[in-house]
Formats: sequence, C-alpha cells, structure tokens
Amino acid sequence: MSEEAAGIPTLADARKVLASQPFSVLIGARLVEYESGRAVLEIPLRPELLQQFGFAHGGVLAYAADNALTFAAGTALGSSIVTTGMTLDYLRPASGALLRAVAAVVSAGRRQALCRCKIYAVTDDATEKLCAAAQGSARVIDSNR
Amino acid sequence: MSEEAAGIPTLADARKVLASQPFSVLIGARLVEYESGRAVLEIPLRPELLQQFGFAHGGVLAYAADNALTFAAGTALGSSIVTTGMTLDYLRPASGALLRAVAAVVSAGRRQALCRCKIYAVTDDATEKLCAAAQGSARVIDSNR
Amino acid sequence: MSEEAAGIPTLADARKVLASQPFSVLIGARLVEYESGRAVLEIPLRPELLQQFGFAHGGVLAYAADNALTFAAGTALGSSIVTTGMTLDYLRPASGALLRAVAAVVSAGRRQALCRCKIYAVTDDATEKLCAAAQGSARVIDSNR
Amino acid sequence: MSEEAAGIPTLADARKVLASQPFSVLIGARLVEYESGRAVLEIPLRPELLQQFGFAHGGVLAYAADNALTFAAGTALGSSIVTTGMTLDYLRPASGALLRAVAAVVSAGRRQALCRCKIYAVTDDATEKLCAAAQGSARVIDSNR
Repeated sequence: MSEEAAGIPTLADARKVLASQPFSVLIGARLVEYESGRAVLEIPLRPELLQQFGFAHGGVLAYAADNALTFAAGTALGSSIVTTGMTLDYLRPASGALLRAVAAVVSAGRRQALCRCKIYAVTDDATEKLCAAAQGSARVIDSNR
Repeated sequence: MSEEAAGIPTLADARKVLASQPFSVLIGARLVEYESGRAVLEIPLRPELLQQFGFAHGGVLAYAADNALTFAAGTALGSSIVTTGMTLDYLRPASGALLRAVAAVVSAGRRQALCRCKIYAVTDDATEKLCAAAQGSARVIDSNR
Repeated sequence: MSEEAAGIPTLADARKVLASQPFSVLIGARLVEYESGRAVLEIPLRPELLQQFGFAHGGVLAYAADNALTFAAGTALGSSIVTTGMTLDYLRPASGALLRAVAAVVSAGRRQALCRCKIYAVTDDATEKLCAAAQGSARVIDSNR
Repeated sequence: MSEEAAGIPTLADARKVLASQPFSVLIGARLVEYESGRAVLEIPLRPELLQQFGFAHGGVLAYAADNALTFAAGTALGSSIVTTGMTLDYLRPASGALLRAVAAVVSAGRRQALCRCKIYAVTDDATEKLCAAAQGSARVIDSNR
C-alpha cells in the first residue's frame, strides 16, 4: 500500500467507501462533505424509509448517526476503523425532503476519535429542523486485539 | 376506541405495527416474540444489509436495537410511544444467517420505560454470538407537550 | 410563588441552588457562568477528589457532567427539573488545578432539553485540556406522572 | 510484578484498590462483592451526599455507576484498566439507608469489557428500589497508545 493510500481519504475516496457499503446504497445515502474533522451525509427521504406515522424511521436516523460519526472519525484516523459505540437522542419526528447528518470530531488521538453528530430534517425549501443528536467513538482496527 | 385497543398489543397486533413500518419491511425484520416485558426481532442477513467488509452494517444493528427496544417498551406502555434515545455498544463484527435482537424492559412507569437489548449474530447451525448491546428509553406520546 | 420565581433563574439564584446541594458543597463546585443556554461549573482539584493514580476520579468528572448539564438545562426550563440520563465519554486522565465543565443547550422545548458538556482539566497557568465529553437530557418535574 | 499480581484481583485486593482512591473514601463507598464477572458497591447515604430536595445527588449515582462498572470490568481484565465511557439513565429519586450498585460483565475480550449496572436505593428494612441503570466500557491501559 502506498503512503497515500494509508493517509486520510479524500472526498472521492470516501464516496467510494460509501458506494462499497451495500446498506448505504439501499438507504440511498450520499456524502456531501468530507474534510478534516467533518463529514456530512444526506439521505433523501422516500416512502421506504418511513415508519407507520409517516416520519423517517428511528432506524434511518440511527443509520445516519452511525455512518456520519464513522466518516467524521475517518477524516482523523483513516478508513481502517470501526465504530465502538454511540448514543443517540431523538428530539422530534423527522419529515421533509431529506435528512442531513452533520458530524464533527470532538477529540482524536492516533488510534481513537470521539465525534458528535446533529441530524436535521430538511424541507423542499431548504428549512432545517434539528431532529436528533448523537455522540460516538471509533477506533483504528487493531490486528492484535 | 375499545378498551382492548387501548391495552397492550398482542403478538399479532405488534406484527401489524411492524408490517406498517415501510423501513422495517425494507430491512426484512420479523417479530418472533412479543410478551410482557420482552420483544425479539429477527433480521435475515442478505447482501443489501452489509458494509464494505462483508459484515452487517452498523446501521442495521442500530435499526435492530432501536426497534427491539421500542417494541419491548410497547409491551409495557402500549403502542402510542416514541423512542427518546438509546446507547449502542458494538462488540464484534456481525455475520451469519440472521441478527436476533432480544430486548427486555428494565423499568416501566405509566408513561416511560427503560429497556435493554442484546443483538446476536446467528449462524445457519443456530450458534449465537453477542455482537452489540443497547440501552434505551421510550415514552407515551403526550398530546399536550 | 411569584411569577418571577417561576422563570429562569439568574446566576445568583443558580448559585443558591448549587449551595443548597450538600454534595456539591462536599465536592467544592462553583458556578462561574449561567446564562441563556449555557452553564459553566468549576471544581478545584484537591487530594480528596483523586483516584489511585493521582488523577481526578472518573466519578468527579461524572458529577461535573451531570450537574453542568442540569444547570444548562435549567437556563431553558427553570429550576424544577430532573436529569433523565447522560452519556459520558472519557478522553484522557484529568489533572491540574481545576476541572471546568462547560455545558450548553442543544435543543429545548417547553418541558425537555438536550444538552452537551465538555470537561477540561485546567492547569495553574490556565492551559485547558479536554478530558471528557457528555450528552444528556433533563425534563420539568411532572406532578401528574 | 509476580504473576499473581498480574492476574484477577481478589476481593481483598480490590478493596485495597478502592481504599487507595481518595474520592471513594470521601464518598464512603465499600465493596461488598467482587467475583468473576460481578462487583457490588455500597454507599451509605449521609446528608453530605444529597441534593437540594433530600435525595441522593445524581453525581453520587454517577460515581457509583462509574466505579461499579470499572470494578466489574476488573474481574475480567485485571486492575490496570480505564473506563472509556458510560451511559446512565436515572429512573427515580434515590433515598434510604444506602445505595447498592450491582455491576456485571456483558462481554469481555482480552483487552476490553462491556458491563452493565443497576443502582438500587435500599431502605433500613432492606427494601430495594431500582433508581438508575448504566452501561459502560473499560479497557486495559495500553502503553503504546
């Protein structure tokens, strides 16, 4: 592997990672920002992603939090990482044109990073409403664990 | 509404709720147990639910935790509830024939319940391996909030 | 109770609340900021607050997170509130002259608020090092629960 | 260090660790059980540990959760560990003669362990009431992080 490959992925690299996750393709997630300490994931809302009351299913928000946190951590740690855990607080029902999950690194060492994420429901006229907030960690995959 | 409808749903009722969640249908989740204080959700693993390394995507486990916790809470609170939040710790990569999320009520009042969940990866020969553990809350939807 | 008393406490009011918590007096916590959406708590580190390796005990950081989150929520909800839960991630051992817990409201409704907190270890020369990060909720005490 | 010292501490060893934590001495915590996968910590309630309404301060419950989780993890990992994080859900106000924090290992590898804890308020006539529930992780201190 070249030194470049071992470094921090670019947005193009990170989009390839997202495209190589079949579940992210099923969800229809797209990575719209990916830079030092920050990642933004968007999920257009379509009927298949809803729950019985017509709002985005909590599991879709949980997917968004999990993956946005992990991509944000990846900007600090590279892409050979696993998410170790997260906390997600739901604030209000999410509906609209899309979900936007904005994640940022709070603290990163060489092997671990703590990130936070806010999930917004965005309407057709681009109004954002905060729907959930998460905090979670990722660490470099450790061959000798 | 009849008194029966206002009470705790039966397994058949709960399965109708699950079937009315388009995202749960997309995931392919099925409810295999639903009784006082306990709910078990299973998700057959298929390629669409995986991440780039061939394991179940963390977002699928997060969906499983979210929904199993909520159904367990529903056995105590009825079905007009929302999940308020959860914490999910990932323990090891999940692969096999299916995911089994076993959730139980830890404490329930009239309006709120705290639940815990363990998520197992189950192989074709029915071996279970613990892959994640969650703790989360739900509360009755409050018309005057 | 006057209408004023039912509103959002001032810094002086909030300091009276802190002084009326015997455990906060035992810890030696002081409230240094208290304004709309934000509260800052400081705890001078003394030998009684340490663990066996000479760092601040995790329980002291947990106290700081719990109380700073609750005071921040109080700026939005008033002082008749209870903390419903929190998540705390420890980032590095804390030592120095004092702990500073900076908490802010992420989202507040009429009856609930979600807050986040960062805990810094502050040295004698005022250098801050981030040691822990928390997310937690509080809600108004509900007489008819 | 002898091989014995590197192994899993006995109850007597673990009590020495607790006694070497000045903050645990200030709190007045005692370790009443310590065996494979399980630790029980008790804290006699005295006026200094309360909040303004006469209940145990949330920070005391948070200390109890943090330390009970860590001691339970120690039964699997040995005593050179740090707590990496925890989630704590408060269920009801705690009052009575003492707090009892019962923690158990959910999953342990060679270097990490996930534990859960329930905190009970115990009255003079030995009635237990569940007041809080926690989930948290610890890992072996890693010299090359």
